[in-house]
Amino acid sequence: MNQNIKNELRSIVGRDYFLDTPNELYVYSYDATPLYQAMPDAVVIPSSVEEIAAIMKVASQHRIPIVSRGSGTNLCGGTVPVEGGIVLNMNRLNTFKEIDQDNLTATFEPGVITADVHKAVEAVGLFYPPDPGSMRISTMGGNVAECAGGMRGLKYGVTKDYIMGLEAVLPNGDVLRVGGKNAKDVAGYDVTKLLVGSEGTLAVITEITAKLLPLPETKQTMVAYYNDLTDAARSVQRIIASKIIPATLEFLDQETMIVVEDFAHIGLPLDMKAMLIIEQDGTQLQVEHDIARIADICRAEGAAEVRMAQTAEEGASLMAARRSALSALARVKPTTILEDATVPRANLAAMVEQVNLVAKKYDLQICTFGHAGDGNLHPTCLTDERDKGEIHRVEQAFEEIFHAAIKLGGTITGEHGVGMAKADYLDLKVGPVGMDVMRRIKEAFDPHGIMNPGKIFAKSSRRRVVVNHGCGCGHTGEHEHGTEQADK
Amino acid sequence: MNQNIKNELRSIVGRDYFLDTPNELYVYSYDATPLYQAMPDAVVIPSSVEEIAAIMKVASQHRIPIVSRGSGTNLCGGTVPVEGGIVLNMNRLNTFKEIDQDNLTATFEPGVITADVHKAVEAVGLFYPPDPGSMRISTMGGNVAECAGGMRGLKYGVTKDYIMGLEAVLPNGDVLRVGGKNAKDVAGYDVTKLLVGSEGTLAVITEITAKLLPLPETKQTMVAYYNDLTDAARSVQRIIASKIIPATLEFLDQETMIVVEDFAHIGLPLDMKAMLIIEQDGTQLQVEHDIARIADICRAEGAAEVRMAQTAEEGASLMAARRSALSALARVKPTTILEDATVPRANLAAMVEQVNLVAKKYDLQICTFGHAGDGNLHPTCLTDERDKGEIHRVEQAFEEIFHAAIKLGGTITGEHGVGMAKADYLDLKVGPVGMDVMRRIKEAFDPHGIMNPGKIFAKSSRRRVVVNHGCGCGHTGEHEHGTEQADK
Repeated sequence: MNQNIKNELRSIVGRDYFLDTPNELYVYSYDATPLYQAMPDAVVIPSSVEEIAAIMKVASQHRIPIVSRGSGTNLCGGTVPVEGGIVLNMNRLNTFKEIDQDNLTATFEPGVITADVHKAVEAVGLFYPPDPGSMRISTMGGNVAECAGGMRGLKYGVTKDYIMGLEAVLPNGDVLRVGGKNAKDVAGYDVTKLLVGSEGTLAVITEITAKLLPLPETKQTMVAYYNDLTDAARSVQRIIASKIIPATLEFLDQETMIVVEDFAHIGLPLDMKAMLIIEQDGTQLQVEHDIARIADICRAEGAAEVRMAQTAEEGASLMAARRSALSALARVKPTTILEDATVPRANLAAMVEQVNLVAKKYDLQICTFGHAGDGNLHPTCLTDERDKGEIHRVEQAFEEIFHAAIKLGGTITGEHGVGMAKADYLDLKVGPVGMDVMRRIKEAFDPHGIMNPGKIFAKSSRRRVVVNHGCGCGHTGEHEHGTEQADK
Repeated sequence: MNQNIKNELRSIVGRDYFLDTPNELYVYSYDATPLYQAMPDAVVIPSSVEEIAAIMKVASQHRIPIVSRGSGTNLCGGTVPVEGGIVLNMNRLNTFKEIDQDNLTATFEPGVITADVHKAVEAVGLFYPPDPGSMRISTMGGNVAECAGGMRGLKYGVTKDYIMGLEAVLPNGDVLRVGGKNAKDVAGYDVTKLLVGSEGTLAVITEITAKLLPLPETKQTMVAYYNDLTDAARSVQRIIASKIIPATLEFLDQETMIVVEDFAHIGLPLDMKAMLIIEQDGTQLQVEHDIARIADICRAEGAAEVRMAQTAEEGASLMAARRSALSALARVKPTTILEDATVPRANLAAMVEQVNLVAKKYDLQICTFGHAGDGNLHPTCLTDERDKGEIHRVEQAFEEIFHAAIKLGGTITGEHGVGMAKADYLDLKVGPVGMDVMRRIKEAFDPHGIMNPGKIFAKSSRRRVVVNHGCGCGHTGEHEHGTEQADK
């Protein structure tokens, strides 16, 4: 990037918001997805849609890559500037514009933190359900770009299900406004939903209007422990087939339970092979009714013990234990490799079985936990990246796990996104025709390919798995499944 | 279309499923949107995705327009073959493939009738919420193409919210499979949601996988009558703002009540200025609780009378009366002009007021009813298309109504689609940047412009409103708001 361009960018945002020293750039060379790293040429920190439009015009004219970024908590290398260019730090666009209690919507800029949306709307009795693991750090812009999921996906869906309107800047600097506050709107193609989950490859999101729900009156948490892992998976299947949709239905296998207990000290029975953490919300009566039925189903399907949280605090501590799973796992070995292969929920037991077979075949330690109700598992390999032989086996193992998920009607990524990490596998899910359609959509928005290049679409063979250092460097607290005690 | 091409098409589907006599073509020259009519060159009735792929290759090679069509119940001229070409009658693809009770999904071909989906899934205790007025006649392929709405949109959303996976044939004959049964899936762009509501302009839908919910345990219907129309609108606003989301919240003004009563004889108090029909579903206790609170709110906001349906039959007859509104209106005058301008629900009162002002200004009889909870109104003008002067005033009036909706943060079409009828107004909602993005998406899928040409994107000035004959010709039974006694 030459000095003229740098000066142009500086003149748009002001000297303080243009960074290009090596130390400054280094901070933006990685995200929560270790092993992926690349230096940007500049970091620009705009404060308004007008500034972003001006930046995009410069980038477009000179064919400079644009990587928009919030907190960088994604787990797919989504904000690593792999082709250099400009990292667009969106954190100054952090105005919470409005909660509209009549229309049940909230409107805010992309730099607003996810948990702050929760807090703001819950204060007036409303509810924004998506709750990715990184919610205390992640920005809503990032949540929209990656279509963040979380633990309430089973009953409430994911980010996409709540985004009603967007303002976004196109690569050429044009400002697009799509959707709005209308409960029904069929005026043309649904560009809003297309932008959600587009991983910064189509446009820069500059304003978000989200749908809200009434906040459920109460919630209740329970756990069920199992001597046999497939009993737990079958319980999940039976609960759903019995037409009960809990707010949360999480699964931890024994190895995950052991490390979580060591981390969180909540008295988990470590001789058990698996546990389910189940939460239902709604009115008091409905919740009591559902939880009682769920407990019956768990017992009937072989749960060794079923326990209700006696207080809201106990419920919260169980949920916190679940949320700490990845951080806990990350302490065990130097390297923690996490995936999010997902299957239709009825195939959960088959998928867990496949993961265990693959772990045995490649002689690896793979712990599995995740959003069982969604079929969204997080098989997590505890390893050491310095052991090249083992890392090679890990890559082979996850390749087999992806194939197994696809064979079971699943997908390569349930909630982390494609980014760089899954780009080589996207064709497994969508096939050559799907790849071609997606490439053409990409070109329709971004004819010069400047928007987050190297993401979603594979250019060449790369490292294929997401590796998290378990070295206490703080990264484990920054990603989708991070601890609530993240050190930042 | 020359004989060689006709022979090619005949050889694909067989002689019986290729139509090209004037009488046969005439049937496919219009849909439920009168005043729009154009003859196709041929009608082809395929039985499989393979046949459709072969047809698309022929059409692509010779640049022949393709208009896919189910029952033709749309209200935007969406299936009128305005540039000739092939009408693809999808009714032979009508296999109901599967109800998956573990994953809560149903998979079927596009020719399956909407109400048959309701019946099939309700028989096993499941629920597919979207219920467009035409549901007894409309096909699911049409519902997906238009993103059909209905009376349960307030609580349950629209077609888009339930489509998880699609198979579709692209203009070049490639078969695309997107989405599936996964509750979470972020593998690339969400092409599934993009195809829903794309009005046949991108691809031909050949298989649909829909999300199902548990069937609510029970439901309860109530009505509230008002001496003042704005009291009714304010009640709607207060109900939602009180964080109660009824399954259905419908509005009828006095003029609509009068004609509905004349049609359905259910004892409506015709001195009232407006009524709300409200239905809540869920568990018995929850429903009782919500209905009691809603009744309190209606009374507090000035309802002259609030009445609970005493039996399920009485509830059903009230809902049927609402569903008969358009058919009832259509009997009054020779021509019934119906619109679906939609606003954020908090602006309902302001919108109703605007409609009344416009009606007065242009000296027109406009009755208003619709999905109040969604802000999705159906201002309906009773007129006579032979009176050119009045029709001209009608067009001016609706143009003003669209502008008023946009000014109130609304949209030009809540659930009918753009098609030909609203093409001239789409830029009002999405602006030049939105139009440009949509055009580029269109080109990405359909570079030769053969998919339902003349829809969504305005080419030239056309007649601007949807006119329904109230002549008893049967059309009124075929569209979105048709009677349940439709004569076919």
